[in-house]
Amino acid sequence: MKKINGGVCAAKGFKASGVHCGIRPNHTKSDLALIVSDVSCTAAGVYTTNKVYGAPITVNRLHLADGKAQAIITNSGNANTCAPGGVQLAKDVCAMTAAELGLATEDILINSTGVIGQAMSLDPFRRGIPEAVKALAYGEKASSSAATAIMTTDTYNKQQAVEFELSGVTCHLGAIAKGSGMINPNMATMLLFITTDAAISSEMLSKALSEDVKGTFNQISVDGDTSTNDTVLIMANGLAGNPEITEENADYEVFKEALHTVSVALCRDLAGDGEGATKLIECVVSGAPTLEIARKVSKTVIQSDLLKSAMFGEDANWGRILCAIGYTEGDFNVEKTNVTLESAAGSVWVCENAAHHLFSEELAAKVLAEKEIRILVDLQDGTESAAAWGCDLTYDYVKINGDYRT
Amino acid sequence: MKKINGGVCAAKGFKASGVHCGIRPNHTKSDLALIVSDVSCTAAGVYTTNKVYGAPITVNRLHLADGKAQAIITNSGNANTCAPGGVQLAKDVCAMTAAELGLATEDILINSTGVIGQAMSLDPFRRGIPEAVKALAYGEKASSSAATAIMTTDTYNKQQAVEFELSGVTCHLGAIAKGSGMINPNMATMLLFITTDAAISSEMLSKALSEDVKGTFNQISVDGDTSTNDTVLIMANGLAGNPEITEENADYEVFKEALHTVSVALCRDLAGDGEGATKLIECVVSGAPTLEIARKVSKTVIQSDLLKSAMFGEDANWGRILCAIGYTEGDFNVEKTNVTLESAAGSVWVCENAAHHLFSEELAAKVLAEKEIRILVDLQDGTESAAAWGCDLTYDYVKINGDYRT
Repeated sequence: MKKINGGVCAAKGFKASGVHCGIRPNHTKSDLALIVSDVSCTAAGVYTTNKVYGAPITVNRLHLADGKAQAIITNSGNANTCAPGGVQLAKDVCAMTAAELGLATEDILINSTGVIGQAMSLDPFRRGIPEAVKALAYGEKASSSAATAIMTTDTYNKQQAVEFELSGVTCHLGAIAKGSGMINPNMATMLLFITTDAAISSEMLSKALSEDVKGTFNQISVDGDTSTNDTVLIMANGLAGNPEITEENADYEVFKEALHTVSVALCRDLAGDGEGATKLIECVVSGAPTLEIARKVSKTVIQSDLLKSAMFGEDANWGRILCAIGYTEGDFNVEKTNVTLESAAGSVWVCENAAHHLFSEELAAKVLAEKEIRILVDLQDGTESAAAWGCDLTYDYVKINGDYRT
Repeated sequence: MKKINGGVCAAKGFKASGVHCGIRPNHTKSDLALIVSDVSCTAAGVYTTNKVYGAPITVNRLHLADGKAQAIITNSGNANTCAPGGVQLAKDVCAMTAAELGLATEDILINSTGVIGQAMSLDPFRRGIPEAVKALAYGEKASSSAATAIMTTDTYNKQQAVEFELSGVTCHLGAIAKGSGMINPNMATMLLFITTDAAISSEMLSKALSEDVKGTFNQISVDGDTSTNDTVLIMANGLAGNPEITEENADYEVFKEALHTVSVALCRDLAGDGEGATKLIECVVSGAPTLEIARKVSKTVIQSDLLKSAMFGEDANWGRILCAIGYTEGDFNVEKTNVTLESAAGSVWVCENAAHHLFSEELAAKVLAEKEIRILVDLQDGTESAAAWGCDLTYDYVKINGDYRT
């Protein structure tokens, strides 16, 4: 397992592009991204659990019913959610993209991120889709263009990729992602697109993805608000030439590890670049009686506004960590909880058996002055562990999200 | 039902006091409050659901096992939570208070609010308890002294009271409360003490209290962090002379209404005075299929950091309200949701059937410029309704909670 460059174009046979088509008037940022495989792919998706969800999600569910896809078209600037005629518009965009690429409409997946509740026009797509198809290219630069076109309040574009071997054949898996922070001036979205040249059946691809997100993307939180448009899509085109994965064999385990490696790296990128964030906060819970409790406790800790404010203030206020652990739902014992704060500057044990553990405030201040903080929680009540990723709560978060829409 | 002054001393036979005893070195604010009834009371309590909870809660559960109490002693400045020897200390404080008052230790209830994880000394209590007993008085001023002594980051002391009739006999019910905001520099607590001169059995008192808090105090949120010490206590001394309420009769309904009136008024006080808050946000959900869903939806809306930031920015960003409704757990339909924003400046209908409803941005700006904002959500999916109370998310919230403990 080796980290490589190339993002969504690291895998063989994947082209990408990002162009400006004018979804939002008076905005010049690129706003239309296209990812296309040279050949048909097995594909899978996971979506927000919000009861209010974007029209593109309705269309993706339809288009992925056969477990196949070949291209992903995505716009930023308008979420196409709670907007009149949204589903028809999403279908039209897929049809236009398919026509331009010479593919079937059902092979196109679609995503939108931006303002909620505003009708979207087809006009920008009429201009943009031919341009995006024309701009398609292989390689790192093309992936960057696509990654930039899907950005909203992200401060940098996010790409990760790995190289790995399946039955002796070199394969690649890469991804681009956009902000788990909420869009200025409006609605949140996490979008993540993964491509791989590994050959894997759509059933196994779907299984790998849905298992992986439970411990990765579902464990990120910037502010606890679950977007209406969160989407993770994966396409596998098989061009690496490995024997197709159709069952839970050794290759499947390697594939899952590749997926997990890229996912965790992107979780850290997304959480650390949350709106207004100055620090990445990782909470690792061990000694939990069940995996579910380990996940819930770690996520509850990184979601606490009190803890997030304390991290912004670089305050080793472990009582807030205990408090968040204590209000986590589930059946577990808190009385033996140990807490350690850790960063590049060192490690400080602040809580032993749910009570104060004498520590150096000087060292704690040094540890918390770093940009990446790990909160290690040992419940001493079992053997399961899990992690979650978040960020601090800052003046800038309030500023960004308190701004007027106009 | 008439609102009156007098807080916890509005009911006959209740004295109170608040003194400074020095729980926190170098702090001069009054930090010890005492409420005493002239005669034995039926009493009940409800407490935080946090698995990590204060030592006083352990002691109150013991002392309320018989459904009776006569006095409440409360300190601010130290939460007596996650602190070594905390339960013994709480018992000792009760014993000291009982001795000074000539009562049994089991008739004393105790509360602590302040820093978590720090050992507390008996010394300040040795000085403070005799002083507090000496200072006990009837009337409005005494209630104020007690209400001030339990304050932490509250910006004003909170008292409410009502006068009502049970079987033709005039009765009173009053309360004092402290901040649902989180204590600077440390841990949260909502404390609420209610007194009444109505005669009511401990069973019916307990029933009335536990039913009422579901729709009142459990529906407040400043930041979603459930404190380790939240406590509501009620004492009824029967000195009004009404026929004792021992079943769910007409008098019980009147008593419940009195309790509810005082509770809702205090919910509004507590939420509107949340840490750093500039606005009280009330969300009223109607048309829900069940009461539980109405409560959950309203509470989810007022807990959304995105919505709270938008309210601070006075932005009629209804998409964030829809988003929060959508991620509320439960089985209900969102597609017919209507949303109206309302304040003293008027009312503006912003969302119809989960989509944009054309509105005047000018009017919306006026509505949201007020200090008390109501968000009216009609799910059009049933007949149940509920309310929840919160506040906006501001720079000051982050500042207060990002500060160092020292």
